[in-house]
Amino acid sequence: MAALATRIDGRPGALVPVDDRGLQYGDGLFETVAVRHGALPLWQRHLARLLEGCARLGWTRVPSVEELEDDARALAADVEQGVIKVMVTRGSGGRGYRAPADTMPRRIVSLWPWPEGIEHGAQEGVTACWCRTRVARHPQLAGLKHLHRLEQVLARAEWQDEYAEGLMCDEQDRVIEGTMSNVFVRIDGQLRTPELNEAGVAGVMRAAVLECAHELNIACQETTVCRDSFAQAEEIFLTNSIIGIWPIRTLAGRNYPIGETTRVLAGALESKDCVAYRI
Amino acid sequence: MAALATRIDGRPGALVPVDDRGLQYGDGLFETVAVRHGALPLWQRHLARLLEGCARLGWTRVPSVEELEDDARALAADVEQGVIKVMVTRGSGGRGYRAPADTMPRRIVSLWPWPEGIEHGAQEGVTACWCRTRVARHPQLAGLKHLHRLEQVLARAEWQDEYAEGLMCDEQDRVIEGTMSNVFVRIDGQLRTPELNEAGVAGVMRAAVLECAHELNIACQETTVCRDSFAQAEEIFLTNSIIGIWPIRTLAGRNYPIGETTRVLAGALESKDCVAYRI
Repeated sequence: MAALATRIDGRPGALVPVDDRGLQYGDGLFETVAVRHGALPLWQRHLARLLEGCARLGWTRVPSVEELEDDARALAADVEQGVIKVMVTRGSGGRGYRAPADTMPRRIVSLWPWPEGIEHGAQEGVTACWCRTRVARHPQLAGLKHLHRLEQVLARAEWQDEYAEGLMCDEQDRVIEGTMSNVFVRIDGQLRTPELNEAGVAGVMRAAVLECAHELNIACQETTVCRDSFAQAEEIFLTNSIIGIWPIRTLAGRNYPIGETTRVLAGALESKDCVAYRI
Repeated sequence: MAALATRIDGRPGALVPVDDRGLQYGDGLFETVAVRHGALPLWQRHLARLLEGCARLGWTRVPSVEELEDDARALAADVEQGVIKVMVTRGSGGRGYRAPADTMPRRIVSLWPWPEGIEHGAQEGVTACWCRTRVARHPQLAGLKHLHRLEQVLARAEWQDEYAEGLMCDEQDRVIEGTMSNVFVRIDGQLRTPELNEAGVAGVMRAAVLECAHELNIACQETTVCRDSFAQAEEIFLTNSIIGIWPIRTLAGRNYPIGETTRVLAGALESKDCVAYRI
């Protein structure tokens, strides 16, 4: 699968200078944004996380919000359903970890086809596995969607097509996230999602689900969730900006129902136009 | 500072396809190699670490050793003193952490000017600091020089020119490494260097120093080294492929001598042509 179109610093392009610090050092951030009828659900949240990332990485120059929005909207125009990947890097720099003071961030915005099977997963649920690859705890980087994705690459290499997603734990078997999603679990009638102050990506859809839950008076704790506790789960679901909510039907040989809480939250996301499909 | 010359997959170039998985996901590795009179000290060790990295990252295709060597030797030919950066990435791939089965690794080999002050640091020693930024523990990636360098970028941003290097600890104040170097410390007459089975980059020069120490009957333990123990250090030195050995003269307001062990090891490295200078 290749990008349908890419804009690099606002111009159509397919090549990046080799001295880009995103390539050299992982010095960058990205967002994966759904497109529906030319619109970009949760766009402001994506932008906000991207800018929070720039600040936390200590960038002295920040990409222009207007230019990022121009790039994304230009690529999304007339697109019925698709995916926009917005990447920003620290820009070009020399050899060495120290960033030159005058580095201009680089914007790389690309349009991708809508993946197959998204709606099916949302309707029917998916089968997931536990990954052996661990997520390292790193409070300074926790929550950010930075370019360090080697853990996720290693985890995703653990299976081929037999699972829709793999769940990842830290070294102490605390559940953190899926390779490309966040996870919610209902145990003893209580909805929980792993707190992400020491590891993991704080997903934009995760935040939207937390907000929906709050509005619907569904209590949801951001807390430590141990892997063992999933055996007692009544409902489990995954979230990200493309899939919206995917119920997990099977995990490690156990079956789970698509529960009422999952259905209510999925319906709320749909009615608020947070997801890029109708089921 | 810019590269003097770059070869991308064997051809002179300055641009990389935007879908390179090194840029997109940090899915790559690199080596920093010294050049002296056109020769590449410790080249075989660099190659071995690079290939070990490819294996540990599970790459199904591996860059050709002959082609990497051709690139590096072509750029190093006639160079009196310089630096070669050898980077390999997983190659081009689509959106998503799963690597396409047929991905061809990409080689990016560049020549850089020899940095100023290397010999001065080796002769006179340097001033270093403790970084606030922590190194995350990740046994699956420990030892590798992969493209995830955001921790080092954040650490290096903690100072400007006042220090030559910063030392990094994990969350438990165990010393791991410098931002761009490994560290050795002599305490109670015993040389030690942090073991790197859970975090850190296992430097090529570090391995050469361990080997020299063994040959010279200087006992050196790879072990847990706590930050507090540095207060009692008799000698501290840094290593990497460019600096060789840099004694630390000042760290956190304390002064340290350039000790006998440091001098003996530095002399041994020089006499074995492991470093790219004579002092």
